[in-house]
Parts: sequence; structure tokens; C-alpha cells
Amino acid sequence: MFVAEYTGQGRIQVVEGTARPPGPGEVQLDVAYVGICGTDLHILHGVMDARVAAPQSIGHEMSGTVAAVGPDVAGWQVGDRVTVIPLDWDGICPACRAGHQHICQHLNFIGIDSPGALQQTWTVKAATLVPLPAAMPLDQAALAEPVAVAVHDVRRSGLVSGDRAVVLGAGPIGVLIASVASDLEAQVLVAEIDPGRRASAQALGFEVVHPDDLPARVDAWTEDAGADVVFEVSGAAAAVVAATAVAKVRGTVVVVAIHGVPRPVDLKQVFWRELTIVGARVYTRADFDTAVELLHTGRIPVDGVVTDVVPLAEVAQAFARLERGAALKILIDMSGSPR
Amino acid sequence: MFVAEYTGQGRIQVVEGTARPPGPGEVQLDVAYVGICGTDLHILHGVMDARVAAPQSIGHEMSGTVAAVGPDVAGWQVGDRVTVIPLDWDGICPACRAGHQHICQHLNFIGIDSPGALQQTWTVKAATLVPLPAAMPLDQAALAEPVAVAVHDVRRSGLVSGDRAVVLGAGPIGVLIASVASDLEAQVLVAEIDPGRRASAQALGFEVVHPDDLPARVDAWTEDAGADVVFEVSGAAAAVVAATAVAKVRGTVVVVAIHGVPRPVDLKQVFWRELTIVGARVYTRADFDTAVELLHTGRIPVDGVVTDVVPLAEVAQAFARLERGAALKILIDMSGSPR
Repeated sequence: MFVAEYTGQGRIQVVEGTARPPGPGEVQLDVAYVGICGTDLHILHGVMDARVAAPQSIGHEMSGTVAAVGPDVAGWQVGDRVTVIPLDWDGICPACRAGHQHICQHLNFIGIDSPGALQQTWTVKAATLVPLPAAMPLDQAALAEPVAVAVHDVRRSGLVSGDRAVVLGAGPIGVLIASVASDLEAQVLVAEIDPGRRASAQALGFEVVHPDDLPARVDAWTEDAGADVVFEVSGAAAAVVAATAVAKVRGTVVVVAIHGVPRPVDLKQVFWRELTIVGARVYTRADFDTAVELLHTGRIPVDGVVTDVVPLAEVAQAFARLERGAALKILIDMSGSPR
Repeated sequence: MFVAEYTGQGRIQVVEGTARPPGPGEVQLDVAYVGICGTDLHILHGVMDARVAAPQSIGHEMSGTVAAVGPDVAGWQVGDRVTVIPLDWDGICPACRAGHQHICQHLNFIGIDSPGALQQTWTVKAATLVPLPAAMPLDQAALAEPVAVAVHDVRRSGLVSGDRAVVLGAGPIGVLIASVASDLEAQVLVAEIDPGRRASAQALGFEVVHPDDLPARVDAWTEDAGADVVFEVSGAAAAVVAATAVAKVRGTVVVVAIHGVPRPVDLKQVFWRELTIVGARVYTRADFDTAVELLHTGRIPVDGVVTDVVPLAEVAQAFARLERGAALKILIDMSGSPR
């Protein structure tokens, strides 16, 4: 079987690997599809080398079927269609004991801190499996992880039906947040600086503005009240300023993007309007289950998000295409021989 | 009767004024005590000249008795002991319609946006009155406003019994927040850079550390979990960084201080630990009622907060003493002739 490994220095290569038989509590999966994420690009850039032990297979958005079941595993059978929630918590840290296992203080994020899904045969803890409906196409199912991110972000926001939500940034996660918020019958306005991404979000039916036009549009849209919820998904410093500027009195700003450096935040506005800023990271199992349900019932515009499906042999080219902004979400088809 | 007026250019002076008879819906008060607040110092510095129409009497922490009742006022009688909630909302803006009148988008903050309590005879809307228990000393009652701020801040934090709370800044509001949090049986740790303020907070029984020692102390205190709640009351840029650094996973940071310029905020930590940052401004009527109750039942260390009571004639000197950091809270005794 073949795996795609990050080897350091900006490189990813496909090599022959050895399938590991499942130990106690583990299952072996035939991986069907793996999505490439912005985090995977960060890994390729070397900025996460402290966490990734190159050479290491990466990837944490996937779908597949159970190929073998190890000892002491109940409830799973060969052929079951699954995705994996790529979180392995220690269960004993203060965050876990308080019920926040998904952001365990010593979290092992599978695909970053340990080997990931870009392996044709992948062995994981059975506890990480999420069942898929029998009829669900596996290419759609590979979107469960990013959709779970969006579900988690929307849940953290407290958004309810009828709310006006602003999404800053129309990358894959921004578009999925807009989709999940729309599904909850929120009104959604997207701001995006890149013309290509503006066009693709518009093609999905969202109102999309340039960030320069956002404040005036929000004033008109909300009759000077401001937005109920603002999702900061862009990672840009200017978007952080925009987020607090367009939020209503008692509005909520959700920090979805990873800001590598401290950002100037208008704390006077936070005080003045009694804003709430909440961080939202990864997802819980409930978010994953909801994501699968949303995908299965056709409430996520999969075709608008997945712009490319390519064979494993082209994984390096896929990273390069994402790098250039020439694709939104690329799935790697893990089947067949890459040679 | 005499009033203390801000006349611009850093000056406050006592002049003879004219008592205004109460119109419909109004009452006239004999003002007993007025507390001087950090905001009053800001006014004296001229930084709020856009809002204060000098010459104008300022002051918004007070106690007094009803001296005359205007037409169409029910429920108040001459001699009633009262304090004033210095907020006048329009009732029609989006924030008011959503139930957040206390932070109305066109709020008239009485004592800033309109004449304040530094008048021996003061005419106000009856709707702003808060009743005091008959036996409550009026000097204590003048603390109701800053205590209401602290009550509001603690309520916004979601703090519950047993929580570990960090208070950054041991000025009057910081000490009052620590007092209200302690009254709710939270464990409280105060950080303060000024040795005099550290000593006065310690004298009230609080554990107080230098900010440099805060992270290690919080780690030891919470066994590496972090604080449940952090109140940023100092207004310092370094405290904003400290606030997110010492908060636990899913912890809450309350922005109490007014930060005049955007501050660098560690949004990666906000994301990573799923922190919540909430702004807290002024108070609701429920907060005021609670403040009066806390004062009346002796659960606020009034003697440790009120360091000076001076006659109206010495109001300018009182501002200067606060300016030098030589006092924590000064009350102006409004009785008698200042000449």
C-alpha cells in the first residue's frame, strides 16, 4: 500500500508503506478519500515542524471502510463505512475533566501530532470512528471534518433562526459556515477580498461583498443595529477590526481563524457594545454527527466546495494548486496504485 | 446653592448655581455625598470634551434625599433617601428594543453627557431614582454606583461559587469586583503593579501579587488549569496579554477597563483554549438594587475603599489627590456652604 508523507522542506511524496495490523481497540481502514486542508498547507510550509515528525503521513479529512477489526473492539464490522474524528485526548487533564475533551490540554490531533489519513490502509483507534449512512457517497463523506468545524463554529456563536450573520473570509470553512448558518435560517452576508473566492461564494447563492463595502452594507442591512454574529475566518488583521466594528450591541464575534501573532483588537468597542468574542476550535462528536447528517440530507453544497478530485499520485500537484488559490477543496482519491 | 463645574482646561471650580424646580416626571434632590470616579478624572483631563459641555457640573456616584416632587410623579415623597442610576436611554434604538437599555445606542450618561450630581440641589427624572433602606448611612450609599459596576462585571463573567477569579488592577473597581466575587464564594487573586494599591488590597484580606508573578502563581493555584474568570480592570496593554495567558480552557475574560487604543490580543490563545472575552459596561437596575443590598448588609468593605471624605470647597484638591494616587475613593460631602 502507498502513503503520502510530508518529508520536510516543503515536500510531500508518495512512498510505499507497510499496513499495520490493528491492535487491541483498533481498526484498520481502507481509506477512500482524503481532503486537503489549510492546516496541511501550513504543515508543508514547515511552520508546524515542532509538531509533525517528518517523514510522516498527514491528512485528517477522510472517509473509508473498515478493513479489519482488532481485539477488544465491539460494534464495528468489516465493510462498515466510516469517517474518523481525528482527536485523541488524554481524558485526565483539567480541560478533559471539565468536559472539554475536544480541546484537551494535551490533545493528539491525528494527522498533525501523529500519522494521518494519507495512507491507503490506515489503522486507528476504534474510539475515533464515526458511522456513515449506508447510502452516503464516500466522496461527500470526506467533507465531514470541515463541515464539523463549521457546525462547531456556528454552535459556539449561539446563532438562532433569523439572526444576521457576517462571515469574514470565503475559503472552504467560511463557505461551510455560511452554509450551516443558512441551513439554520440565519441571514448571511459574506465578505471576501479575493475576486475568485467572491465569485465562487456568489455562485453558491450567498451575498458577498468586498471588505471595504462591509460596514455600510451592514448598517443598511441591519438598520444601524449591527450583525448578531460575526465569524472571523480570514486570519487577516483588518478583519479583526472589521469584526468588532460591524457587531451589534451584545453581538458575538467567533474567532475561527488561527492568528499567528497578537492582533490589535478594539477593546473599547468590546466594552462599549458589550460584545462577546469566543474562540472556536475543532469539534465535538456531536458536531461530527450533525455534519454527517447535513451532508447526507443534501444541506451542504458539496459540489460548490469540492472543486477537484485527484488520484494519490498527484498529491504534490494538488498542494501546489491549493497554494496558488486555483482550487477551493481538493479530495485525494486513495484507491488504486499510484505507480 | 453651590455646584462644582468642570470649566475645561483641566479645571473644576465651585460656583453658585440656581436650583431648578422639578418639572413633570422629575424630582429635586438634596445631594448628600458624591464619589469621584476615574471617569471624572478623564473629564478633567479634557479627553471627554466632545461629550461634556463645559462649564458643566459632573459627578455620577451619589446619595441624597428627595427635596421636592414634580407633577406626574408617583411613589416618591419628600425625605425619601435615594441614589440615582445615571442612565437615560432613548428606548427606541435597536439595543433598547433588544432589552439592553443600559447600553442604549444613544445613551445619555448623566454626569457626562448631561449635568451631574456635584450640585447641592439636583433635579433628575424620577425614573432614575433607586430607593435606599431607611437606616442606610448616606456616605455608604454613595458607593452604590461603583458597586453596581462591580456587580454587573461579575454577572457578565458568569462566575459561580468556588470559581477561581483573577482581578487585574486594584483600583476602586478592581477591589469592588474582588469583594463581590468573594461574596459569591469565589476564590480571588488580585494582580496590581502599584505597591500602595497592592498594600491596600492586601489590607482588605485579598491575596495580591505583582503582575510579573501572576502566571506562575495561577499555574500553582489552579494546578495548570488556569483561572475560571479574569477581570481586566487595569487598562494596561500588558494586562490584556496576561488575561488570555492565565485563563483556563473555556475560561472567561471580562473587559472592564476602557482601552482608548486597540490592544494586541493573543487571538491564537482565544482560539486554542476556546476562551470567551466579554465586554461589561455600566449596569442594569437589577445590578443597582443588588449593590444597595450588598452595601446595606455590610458585604462591601466600604471603609477600605473610601479613603477620604472632604467638603465641597475642597473638590479641586480632591481631584488632585486622586490624580497623585494618594487616595482610592474620595467622597465629596455636599452639605453646608463652601464659602
